[in-house]
Amino acid sequence: MKVSIIGTTGYGGVELIRFLENHPHAEIATLYANSQEGKWLNEVFPHLTDIRDVKLAAFDLDRIEAESDLVFFGTPSGVSGSMAPALLERGLKVIDLSGDFRLHDPEQYRTWYGKDPADKKWLDQAVYGLSEWAQPSIQQAQLIANPGCYPTATLLALLPLLKKGAIHPRSIIVDAKSGVSGAGRAPSQATHFCETNDSISAYKVGRHQHIPEMEQVLGEWTGQDVLLSFTPHLTPMTRGILATIYADLTQDVTWETIDAWYREVYEDRPFVRLRPQGSHPKTKEVYGSNYCDIAYHVDERTGRVMILSVIDNLVKGAAGQAIQNMNIMMGLPEETGLPKVPVFP
Amino acid sequence: MKVSIIGTTGYGGVELIRFLENHPHAEIATLYANSQEGKWLNEVFPHLTDIRDVKLAAFDLDRIEAESDLVFFGTPSGVSGSMAPALLERGLKVIDLSGDFRLHDPEQYRTWYGKDPADKKWLDQAVYGLSEWAQPSIQQAQLIANPGCYPTATLLALLPLLKKGAIHPRSIIVDAKSGVSGAGRAPSQATHFCETNDSISAYKVGRHQHIPEMEQVLGEWTGQDVLLSFTPHLTPMTRGILATIYADLTQDVTWETIDAWYREVYEDRPFVRLRPQGSHPKTKEVYGSNYCDIAYHVDERTGRVMILSVIDNLVKGAAGQAIQNMNIMMGLPEETGLPKVPVFP
Amino acid sequence: MKVSIIGTTGYGGVELIRFLENHPHAEIATLYANSQEGKWLNEVFPHLTDIRDVKLAAFDLDRIEAESDLVFFGTPSGVSGSMAPALLERGLKVIDLSGDFRLHDPEQYRTWYGKDPADKKWLDQAVYGLSEWAQPSIQQAQLIANPGCYPTATLLALLPLLKKGAIHPRSIIVDAKSGVSGAGRAPSQATHFCETNDSISAYKVGRHQHIPEMEQVLGEWTGQDVLLSFTPHLTPMTRGILATIYADLTQDVTWETIDAWYREVYEDRPFVRLRPQGSHPKTKEVYGSNYCDIAYHVDERTGRVMILSVIDNLVKGAAGQAIQNMNIMMGLPEETGLPKVPVFP
Amino acid sequence: MKVSIIGTTGYGGVELIRFLENHPHAEIATLYANSQEGKWLNEVFPHLTDIRDVKLAAFDLDRIEAESDLVFFGTPSGVSGSMAPALLERGLKVIDLSGDFRLHDPEQYRTWYGKDPADKKWLDQAVYGLSEWAQPSIQQAQLIANPGCYPTATLLALLPLLKKGAIHPRSIIVDAKSGVSGAGRAPSQATHFCETNDSISAYKVGRHQHIPEMEQVLGEWTGQDVLLSFTPHLTPMTRGILATIYADLTQDVTWETIDAWYREVYEDRPFVRLRPQGSHPKTKEVYGSNYCDIAYHVDERTGRVMILSVIDNLVKGAAGQAIQNMNIMMGLPEETGLPKVPVFP
Repeated sequence: MKVSIIGTTGYGGVELIRFLENHPHAEIATLYANSQEGKWLNEVFPHLTDIRDVKLAAFDLDRIEAESDLVFFGTPSGVSGSMAPALLERGLKVIDLSGDFRLHDPEQYRTWYGKDPADKKWLDQAVYGLSEWAQPSIQQAQLIANPGCYPTATLLALLPLLKKGAIHPRSIIVDAKSGVSGAGRAPSQATHFCETNDSISAYKVGRHQHIPEMEQVLGEWTGQDVLLSFTPHLTPMTRGILATIYADLTQDVTWETIDAWYREVYEDRPFVRLRPQGSHPKTKEVYGSNYCDIAYHVDERTGRVMILSVIDNLVKGAAGQAIQNMNIMMGLPEETGLPKVPVFP
Repeated sequence: MKVSIIGTTGYGGVELIRFLENHPHAEIATLYANSQEGKWLNEVFPHLTDIRDVKLAAFDLDRIEAESDLVFFGTPSGVSGSMAPALLERGLKVIDLSGDFRLHDPEQYRTWYGKDPADKKWLDQAVYGLSEWAQPSIQQAQLIANPGCYPTATLLALLPLLKKGAIHPRSIIVDAKSGVSGAGRAPSQATHFCETNDSISAYKVGRHQHIPEMEQVLGEWTGQDVLLSFTPHLTPMTRGILATIYADLTQDVTWETIDAWYREVYEDRPFVRLRPQGSHPKTKEVYGSNYCDIAYHVDERTGRVMILSVIDNLVKGAAGQAIQNMNIMMGLPEETGLPKVPVFP
Repeated sequence: MKVSIIGTTGYGGVELIRFLENHPHAEIATLYANSQEGKWLNEVFPHLTDIRDVKLAAFDLDRIEAESDLVFFGTPSGVSGSMAPALLERGLKVIDLSGDFRLHDPEQYRTWYGKDPADKKWLDQAVYGLSEWAQPSIQQAQLIANPGCYPTATLLALLPLLKKGAIHPRSIIVDAKSGVSGAGRAPSQATHFCETNDSISAYKVGRHQHIPEMEQVLGEWTGQDVLLSFTPHLTPMTRGILATIYADLTQDVTWETIDAWYREVYEDRPFVRLRPQGSHPKTKEVYGSNYCDIAYHVDERTGRVMILSVIDNLVKGAAGQAIQNMNIMMGLPEETGLPKVPVFP
Repeated sequence: MKVSIIGTTGYGGVELIRFLENHPHAEIATLYANSQEGKWLNEVFPHLTDIRDVKLAAFDLDRIEAESDLVFFGTPSGVSGSMAPALLERGLKVIDLSGDFRLHDPEQYRTWYGKDPADKKWLDQAVYGLSEWAQPSIQQAQLIANPGCYPTATLLALLPLLKKGAIHPRSIIVDAKSGVSGAGRAPSQATHFCETNDSISAYKVGRHQHIPEMEQVLGEWTGQDVLLSFTPHLTPMTRGILATIYADLTQDVTWETIDAWYREVYEDRPFVRLRPQGSHPKTKEVYGSNYCDIAYHVDERTGRVMILSVIDNLVKGAAGQAIQNMNIMMGLPEETGLPKVPVFP
C-alpha cells in the first residue's frame, strides 16, 4: 500500500510519519505541504534527521494519483472538503483527519465551523471512523472521516452506557482537558509558552465544533436524542486528553454491572483498556500510544456516574486512529505499525 | 498585632510569611514547626535568605500566649482540632487554614476526614471565613475556619446565583483543576515531577473532603438543599485552581441579567473581579494574588449556565484569604499587606 | 514623579506596571503601545482587570513631554535608539530596557544587533545601570541603559573576582539558562508551547548580542582584557535565569576567602544575596523578585571556580532593576515599590 | 534469548520493558523487585495494563538461573556490585545499568559513590558498553557496565575530537542539563513537582560521580590525561539530557573539517545523528528514542569549540543503550526492538 500525506507539517501529519516508518505493509509515497514546498523535511522537523531525507512537495493531483493508493489529509478544517473529492473521483482512498466530512448536515458544518461545507454527496458517503464501533463500515469505506480528538475520548466512554439506556441522554456533561498540541503547530498568542505554562483555562465554552459531532454520533448510533454540555480546557502539557464525564443514571446500578457492560463491548479490543475500580487514569499513561483508558465511578450520593477517559490526542485522537483505520481497510490486524507500550514517564 | 504561625514549613505557612513581611500592622512573633525544630528558616526555605533569619521553634503554649495576639495554623488536618482549643481558652485569636473547624457536624468530619473531630463547642463557635460573604461575623470572631481552596473558588461563583434562585440546587456539577501545591510540600509518588509533569488526572472522584464543606455552606447560607458532584484534578502547574461549574437554570435569563446579579454582590469587593462576556479566565491571571476572577456563560442550547472561577490556591485559597480575614478582624482595609497586581506571566 | 511607559505590551512593560502600581512616589501618566493603540489595557492583559482601566495610546511626543518626568522604554531593540533622543532633548529622563544604548561603540551595535546604532552623543552619555556597581553615576544620569538579563546575572557574579585579579580574564565561560519570557511576548515557532515544553536547547551559540555587552563592562570596569564564551539556553520555564560560570583561578584560594571578597562588595546591598557554602540556588527562589542570589564553588581538582547566579529575568534582569535605578535617580531607598519576598513555590 | 530484570520498578527498568515488549528475539522471563514483591506490575505501572499482567517477584538466584540467559540490573548503585557476581559465576550474561562496574579502580568507586566497590575481578572483566565505541568488546562480553547518562552524551561528543588531538585535554568543561527522571522514581523533596517546575538549578557542583567515569574513559581510550569540569543541572522536564561542552582548540580548524572528523566515526552508526552547521538540537527531538544528536560550533573569537549533544537520558542514557548492547551481544542489528522515530512533539 502506497500512501501520501497532504498537510505534512502539522502535528497530525508528523505523527503519521512516525507510525508509517514503523509499518511493515505501508510505504510513504510523497509528503505534501503547500506552504513549505521545496523545504527538506528535516529542516521543518529536525527530529526526522537521517530518517527520511526528502523534500516537501506542492499539491499535484496527477502525481498523487500516480503514486498513491491512499491519501491522508492532515490539513486544517476547510481544506480537504474541497480537495479530497478530486482524489476520490479518481478512485483513491482517503482518510481525513480534519472535521470536513464528519457532520452529515452541511448547515451544521457552516454553523459550527463558519466555512463552506463539502459536497453533500461525499458527506453522505464518508464513514465516521471510530474504529471500535464502525469496523464493518470502515472495511468497505473509500472515505473515512477520522473522529475528532475530544469526540474519540468521549464517545468511547459514553456509547456502552447510552446503548444500555443506563444514562439520561440530556443529562450529559463533558468537561475535557487537552494538551496544547491540539491547537496545532502554527504559533499564536494562545499557544505561546508563557501564556500557557503553569496555567489552565477553558476556551470556546458552549461553542466548540466538536459538540455537534458528538451529539450526531451518539444520537445516530443509540437512537436517542442527545444534548450535551461540553467545555474544552487548554492544559499545560504537550499531549493528552482527559474527558471527565458526568451523567445521571436511569437506575440503581453497581460498579460491577457497569464494568460488565463495558467489558462486553471492549473485552477483545486491543486499544481500549478498562481500569479497575477506584482508578484515576493519567494522560501520561497513554502518552505516545493509541490506547483509550477508561474508568468509571458510581456516585450513590448524587445518582450519577462519572467516567474518566484518557487518550493521546495526537494518536488515538488523530494519527494513531487513522492508521488503525487504514489497517482495518487493508484487512490487517489493527495494531500493525502502532506502538505497543506508552512512553512512561 | 503580634502573630505566630504554627505549621510554618508547608506552602500555606510560607505564603503567610510573604504577606506578613509586607504588612504594616502585623508583626511575626515566632514561627513554629515541630518536625523541623531548631532548623534555620532559610535552610528550609532558601528563598527567605536575608529576609528573616530565625530558627524554627517547637510548639510551646506559654511562649505562644506570651508573645502573640493571633495565631495562624498552617498544619495538615487533624492537628489544629486538638491544639487550637488551648490557645482559644487563653483568649488568643486563631485563624485555622486546615479543615478542622469547617464542618459543624462532627460526624461529617469523621466520615470525610477519617479522623477525630474537634470539640463541638469550638465547631459551633468557629466562623467560616469566606471574606466576601461573612464579614460581620469575621469582625467579631475569635476563631476563623479559613475556607478550603476548592470551596473558595466554588462558593464565590455559586452563591450569587443560588441566592437568586436562578439554578437548581441539585443540578450542580463542579469540575475543578488544581495546581500541585494543593497537595502540600511533603514528597510523595503522586507529587513526583515525572508522575505529574505533562499529565493530568482526576483524584478522589466523589469522595473529596471539600464536598460536605461546599454543601454545608451553600445549604446554610441560601436555605436550599444542595447536592453537588465535585471532581478535583491534579494539573501540571504549581499554583492555581480553575473551577468549571455547570448548573441547570430555573428560568430563561440573559448574560446581562446574570452579570447584574454578580455586580450587585461583588461591585465593591476588591478581590472579586467579574470578567466581560465571552471571557475565559486563566489561572495565571491571578497568580500570586488574592483575586478570584469569575466569568459566566449562558448556554441556551442546554439551558445551563457555565461558570468559570479562578484563584491562586495558596493565596485566595489559603494564606491570602487568611490575611484578608485578619485584616477584617483588625478593622483594617482588607487589602492591607496583600499584593495588588498578579505576577504575569 | 510622573512616569510613562513606551512599549507597554511586552513582558518588560507589564512588569513595570506591577511595580509602579505598588510604588508610593511614582505615578503612571500614560501607557504607550503603537501596535495596539486604542485597545483597553485589560483586553491585552486581563490580569490587570479592575486595576488600571485605561486605553493604550499611540506615541505622541508633546503629550509625553507634558505629562511625564521620566519615560521607560520597554520596546524591542532598534526603537528607543531613534525615539529616545527627542525626549532627552526636551529634558526628560529615560530608562531604556532595550540594548540600544548599552554598547559604546556604534559599530559593535551594528555588528551584533544588525541594526542602525543610536547617535554617538547619546551612546556616550548613557549610564550603564547595573545598580550595585554604578550607583553614583545613576544618581546623576539623564539616560540609563538598563542592563540585559544575562549580563546582569553574569556581571554581578564576576565583577568581585575580576576586580581582585582572582581569575584569568580570558578563561571565562558563561553557560546561561533562561525562561521563555526572555524571548518576548510575540508568538513564534520557537516559543510555541509544544516546541519548548519538556525540552531544552541552546541558541545563538557564540553570537548572542549580550557577549559584547558583558565584555565591554567587565573590561572597562576592571581594566582587563576580557574575552568570554557565552551560551544561552531556552529552558522550559516562564521566568528565571541561571548563569553557571567557570573561570580559571589565578591563585590557590579557599571558599572562605572568596566569600569574604563577595561580602565586601555586597554586604549592604539589599538585592544581592550570598549563599552559604555548598548551595545551589534555584531560579524559583528569586521568582517575581529583584534578588540576585550567588553561590560559588572552588574546585581544587581543576583549579577553577564555578559561580552560580540566579535572577528573575523580568525583574532584576529588566523591569525590577529599572525601578531600582529610578529609585536611585530619585534619591529613594532602592527597594521602594519592589516586592520583598519572592513567590515560592 | 530469555531475559530477566532485577530492579523493575525504577524508570530504567520500565523502559527496558517497553523495548523488550517490542523485541522479536528476546523474551521477558521474570521481573524482580524486592521492595514491591507480590504486587501486580500494573498496580505499580498502570500504563502497562493489559500488556503484561504479571506479579513482581523477589530475588531468587536459582529461579533466575533456571529461567534466564541474560539479566539486566536496573537497581540503584550499590546493589548489582554485590548481587551480580553470583549470576556471573553461574554463567549468565549481565548488563548493569548502575555505576557499580564502570570504574576500574575500586578506590575511585569508594570515593565518589561512598559505598563498597564490587570485587576487583569483575571490575576488570566488565566491558564499558558505549555501543558506538566498544562494539568488538561488547560482542565478547559476559558483563556489560552500561554507561551513565551524562557520560553517554559527553563521550560520544568528545571522543572524535580528542582522538584527533584537536582539543586540549585539560580545558574541557561540560555543562549538562538533565530531566528529572534522572533522579529516579523514589519521591524526595528535590523531585517534588512544586520544587522543580518552572525552575532550574545546578547540583553536586564538582562532585558528581560521573566525573571519574568520563575522565577514565576519555583517558584510557585516547591516551591523554583528561581533567574536566562537569556541572549537572536539574531541568524542569521529564526526560532528556543536553550536554553543552566547551574545549580549547589546539589548532585553527574549520567547521567543515570537524564535521568530516565526526562523519568518519559516526557515518554508519544508526543512533548518532550529526546536525548541519548552525544547528541547536533540542532534547525533545530525541524524546523516547535511542538517538544521540550532535552539533558543533567553532568560535573563532575565543579559539574554542562548543559541542551540543542531546540524548533521552532513559533511552540512549540507560535502557535503550542496554538493549543496543544486548543486540550486539546477540549478533543482531543494533536497532532491533528500538523505536525508529522520536516522539515529537
